[in-house]
Amino acid sequence: MGLYNKYLDNLINEFKKLPGIGPKSAKRIVYWLIKQPESEIEKFYLSLKNLIGNIKFCSICFNLSEKEICNICSNQNREKNKICIVEEVSDVAIIESTGQYNGLYHVLGGLLSPIDNIGPEEIKIPQLLYRVKNNNIDEIIIALNPTVEGESTASYIKKIFSQLNIKVTKLAIGLPVGANLEYADEITLSRALSDRKEF
Amino acid sequence: MGLYNKYLDNLINEFKKLPGIGPKSAKRIVYWLIKQPESEIEKFYLSLKNLIGNIKFCSICFNLSEKEICNICSNQNREKNKICIVEEVSDVAIIESTGQYNGLYHVLGGLLSPIDNIGPEEIKIPQLLYRVKNNNIDEIIIALNPTVEGESTASYIKKIFSQLNIKVTKLAIGLPVGANLEYADEITLSRALSDRKEF
Repeated sequence: MGLYNKYLDNLINEFKKLPGIGPKSAKRIVYWLIKQPESEIEKFYLSLKNLIGNIKFCSICFNLSEKEICNICSNQNREKNKICIVEEVSDVAIIESTGQYNGLYHVLGGLLSPIDNIGPEEIKIPQLLYRVKNNNIDEIIIALNPTVEGESTASYIKKIFSQLNIKVTKLAIGLPVGANLEYADEITLSRALSDRKEF
Repeated sequence: MGLYNKYLDNLINEFKKLPGIGPKSAKRIVYWLIKQPESEIEKFYLSLKNLIGNIKFCSICFNLSEKEICNICSNQNREKNKICIVEEVSDVAIIESTGQYNGLYHVLGGLLSPIDNIGPEEIKIPQLLYRVKNNNIDEIIIALNPTVEGESTASYIKKIFSQLNIKVTKLAIGLPVGANLEYADEITLSRALSDRKEF
């Protein structure tokens, strides 16, 4: 449906590409935008433009960084013998927000998925191996989402590092705090049962 | 939570302002964006930048237009004696998509809402009055959302134009096509009953 204005149509198309935004939301956002003062639109497009050239990744752990080496890798107070493996840079912020972890990270940037031709080379596994072999690492903590791809990537990582005699751990699976047994799915409940801890 | 990069934080804040996008969706979108090629981000920000200065409204009906007078108002094949009153420019496209209406439009750009200090002057009612008094208008069709504000704006418009002896009609309220009586809300069902038509 032509909306009489190619600028609107173009922008609606751009918004439609974003994750979680369908054609109706895209239209709604654009019709809302054209009612905003031009200064607001300018702020928005400038902050989008600023992404270009300003997003760098740490050359050690592949977390977001403004310098060659990120704040976490270069922080002398972090425990240098632990590496927590996450899928995305956003996961680093989530784990940091718990305040419970003081080691290093390694951001894979994806998960193994043979169907999409994503093998170990594509997700920075060689770089992880290099890091572990060339540093004094005692523990690798796998913090991947407990999905099919997450679990198979976790198994692959465990297999490699067990051969090197490095301790590999994985986030516990169980009931979320505040959950209700009645609404827990069966797989989670089975895992919570089989992984039960002495109390 | 500082995400180690002020450019990301700024952009997340901009996305959070958009309708229907909360803090989690905003983060998800921005983390997705930084994985896209720079050429894609450039296309997005350019189409946003292009909004500025390129959005004009028709000086007669306040629909979107690239010229002083929009394609609908300047089209000689449209019925010039009917005006359909809508809230937003997006509603024009929705009514046009039915292919059932061949008259003119008047976009209010809002609804009466005394609580937000929105009176008739703020929603282009004086301009509507001027149009109706200076043209040969036979019918005003109110196509506002059947919400509290929509209905009270409709009543206000009806009161003005009834005094001028102009026929005022309003979109029918009733069951949507394909609906199931069981799931219809009581108010819609009551209206469908009281507005029933001979069959």
